[in-house]
Amino acid sequence: MAQSREIQLVRRPVGTPVEKDFTTVHVAVAKPGAGEVQVRNLWMAIDPAMRGRMTDAKSYVPPFALDAAMEGPAIGEVIASNDPGFAPGDLVFSRLGWREIFNAPASALQQRDKASLPAQAWLCFAGMPGLTAYAGLVRIAGLKAGDVVFVSAASGAVGSIACQIARNMGCKVIGSAGGPDKTAFLRDMLKVDAAIDYKAEPSLTKALAHAAKSIGATGIDVYFDNVGGDHLQAALALANNFARFAICGMISQYNVTDAPTVPRNLTLLMTKRIRMEGYIALDHMDLEGEMVAQMTAWNAAGQMASAETVYHSIDKALDAFHGLFTGANIGRTMVKLA
Amino acid sequence: MAQSREIQLVRRPVGTPVEKDFTTVHVAVAKPGAGEVQVRNLWMAIDPAMRGRMTDAKSYVPPFALDAAMEGPAIGEVIASNDPGFAPGDLVFSRLGWREIFNAPASALQQRDKASLPAQAWLCFAGMPGLTAYAGLVRIAGLKAGDVVFVSAASGAVGSIACQIARNMGCKVIGSAGGPDKTAFLRDMLKVDAAIDYKAEPSLTKALAHAAKSIGATGIDVYFDNVGGDHLQAALALANNFARFAICGMISQYNVTDAPTVPRNLTLLMTKRIRMEGYIALDHMDLEGEMVAQMTAWNAAGQMASAETVYHSIDKALDAFHGLFTGANIGRTMVKLA
Repeated sequence: MAQSREIQLVRRPVGTPVEKDFTTVHVAVAKPGAGEVQVRNLWMAIDPAMRGRMTDAKSYVPPFALDAAMEGPAIGEVIASNDPGFAPGDLVFSRLGWREIFNAPASALQQRDKASLPAQAWLCFAGMPGLTAYAGLVRIAGLKAGDVVFVSAASGAVGSIACQIARNMGCKVIGSAGGPDKTAFLRDMLKVDAAIDYKAEPSLTKALAHAAKSIGATGIDVYFDNVGGDHLQAALALANNFARFAICGMISQYNVTDAPTVPRNLTLLMTKRIRMEGYIALDHMDLEGEMVAQMTAWNAAGQMASAETVYHSIDKALDAFHGLFTGANIGRTMVKLA
Repeated sequence: MAQSREIQLVRRPVGTPVEKDFTTVHVAVAKPGAGEVQVRNLWMAIDPAMRGRMTDAKSYVPPFALDAAMEGPAIGEVIASNDPGFAPGDLVFSRLGWREIFNAPASALQQRDKASLPAQAWLCFAGMPGLTAYAGLVRIAGLKAGDVVFVSAASGAVGSIACQIARNMGCKVIGSAGGPDKTAFLRDMLKVDAAIDYKAEPSLTKALAHAAKSIGATGIDVYFDNVGGDHLQAALALANNFARFAICGMISQYNVTDAPTVPRNLTLLMTKRIRMEGYIALDHMDLEGEMVAQMTAWNAAGQMASAETVYHSIDKALDAFHGLFTGANIGRTMVKLA
């Protein structure tokens, strides 16, 4: 029997998750049963939405079960298969992260092309972060060449891809991130037109005005929001008339329990005729084929920089998770499992 | 020469406008000059935006001049004409309210159909309030039959029309207004499915949940916002997935100088995939023909209740204006001038 480790949730965190909320369990994995496939995960990805699933608040995805391995996007290699659709060596995507080796029914797995892209890209720019950025910009915000695009959490998993999509589609891009390392990453790797270190700015609104001016613009046409709060307030303040805001996340607000103090300028929605729309990438899976084709072409042309923080082995998976919230990570947070 | 009265602004009000800020002037109106038309106003409408024009703060419309008649939407009858496009008896719309009889160039007048609708409808459901409600619901919110629609300030000039449009288009309507007289008006005249007296409710969110339940719904599909603040928060809380919010006004926020304490649940935009869009009716004048045709048909079928507070004669125009701010008026505030 194969030896595997998996990380389970043992109680629901209150506020910031702590070590005692989790446990690492050693599991002996039997041979796959009828119709099952055995997979060795190569990579798993960690994302902030996992924090939501640790609580049992009503949401669009069910909470993680207690005393069971958590779930999350993973890319793995088939070790053994009792299903005619899968053969050893196949590259497969599943939602069965937080574990090393597992058996699953074939229906839980999706084939991925080994040849066209590196394995981990299927969890990054050709995976859900890619689709999230693509759907938000192209469908929700109706991105068009020449738009001035503001991306918050621009060094994050989705933001770093959003910056590159906007740039590749002929837009001017202003990215915001926290700290000089991250803004250097925005400039050097993502090639944004202007970068804001929000931690160094007493007024994000002034910083955004300054960034816009530095690229010859007076305001923004599109805001790709990962943050909410003061970033949203600044985006409202600098929005051009008829600006479109794709609300992908509001990470600044997830752990807020008091009344938020920002944004305090929501009435600008009306005077500037702003459209603000929340969305979830899962509602836009019909765009996946188009997105993968586009990303594959951009990658082949050297126009998609890798944007990942990689942790090595499942031992470090919780560190990877905490790194999301401490701001340690740049790009997609990945754990290399094998 | 025709005798007319007009109301002039003689000084700019500070705070609540008082009697001494205005004067009523008797004017002898000569025969119309070359290219001019003489009009007797039948109705004028009063709206809150006039307060803004009494000050000389920078805005998108110029302030009223001192020692001159104020302006505002009016419907009148042509008395004499030196323009081939107008003949005595024609019904005309102008921005030249606050006066009884006037001469104006033909370019300041627009013909209105006398036969299809009562004269005052051109200032109400077939005028800008009608276009504002129609554009917000039909274009911005994408209203469709079966939607559960929440309208705030539902007894106001625009809200009262929005309720009726939604009802006539096969939606269920929940209206909110302040006080038992106004909620009775919503139920009896506008035939909403549920009415909320927000002044009597300690929690607007609970009141909206209760109203929804009372009509067999669990949430709302469309929110027509005139109010912002706690009404917007309640609408977010009760929104169904993919709800659409048309932001027409946020009257609760206009005089707020501190940080707003509501809405504190903006992250629901994302989890519920809500689209929230501000708009200004002037951007949607292309819908005017469609709107008038629809309103005329509904009116002919007895499906458009009059929603007006009518003051009689120009003597009462300032009372009408004050009534806007004391909450005394229901529906559109109108002055019958002849």
